[in-house]
Amino acid sequence: MPDPSMAQRISLITLGVGDLDRALAFYGALGWTPHEKSIDGVVAFFPLDGFVLALWGRAELAEDSGVDDPGGWGGVTLAHDVTSPAEVDSILAAAADAGARIARRAGATPWGGYSGVFVDPDGHPWEVAHNPGWRLDPAGRVTIG
Amino acid sequence: MPDPSMAQRISLITLGVGDLDRALAFYGALGWTPHEKSIDGVVAFFPLDGFVLALWGRAELAEDSGVDDPGGWGGVTLAHDVTSPAEVDSILAAAADAGARIARRAGATPWGGYSGVFVDPDGHPWEVAHNPGWRLDPAGRVTIG
Repeated sequence: MPDPSMAQRISLITLGVGDLDRALAFYGALGWTPHEKSIDGVVAFFPLDGFVLALWGRAELAEDSGVDDPGGWGGVTLAHDVTSPAEVDSILAAAADAGARIARRAGATPWGGYSGVFVDPDGHPWEVAHNPGWRLDPAGRVTIG
Repeated sequence: MPDPSMAQRISLITLGVGDLDRALAFYGALGWTPHEKSIDGVVAFFPLDGFVLALWGRAELAEDSGVDDPGGWGGVTLAHDVTSPAEVDSILAAAADAGARIARRAGATPWGGYSGVFVDPDGHPWEVAHNPGWRLDPAGRVTIG
């Protein structure tokens, strides 16, 4: 029998979208490139560093996940760490230009960093943060402490 | 000025929880270990491979993210890829034992794999999948195709 425990890793994060072309245009405007533009026009995969971000129709994702969808936000926020406050500002500006809502303007945080939040066209929030307490290596890999 | 584009990476995924101790007990039962058990009892960080999963009070996360929270699922599903169908079965069984709801029983998928879905005590779904079309290296890193 395999070990019943679950290794401490995430392979894939799927964001439900209302319009895949709109979502691809948004992430494309930020510089992201999917591995395959789509499979039958319904899903797109963005390769990350050992894992993957997917965009898929939200109704299909809800059904596949066995959950009801009341709409709106559901308790998940992504974050993108950068190496300076100036980079936080420039990414938030680029996200706004691409059609994001700025949900929290950039500023100093209670934890000693600098961050702001944009919300993508499908309601998924991203904190863009400079966190001087975590190590961010040149490849963009984060280490706590 | 920094490059206004956003590197193709995710640093942190935060899951909002209703009870941090309950969430820590659940993920702990699956074998996950936080870097620091908590900061003032309100947040826990799980180091992953170059990024981090956080658990934080859902109300605090909503406020910090600048979003309204209607409750329930919000269009995000995580996935954990494994190397065999048997491992899918054993992890789903362990999750059920730890208190998860099995939202989709394990079985063959339309994309040629084998998967099922559990939902954690805070309503966050995880697909546990064997995907023979993607490469999963010994360190658990996923490569598309």
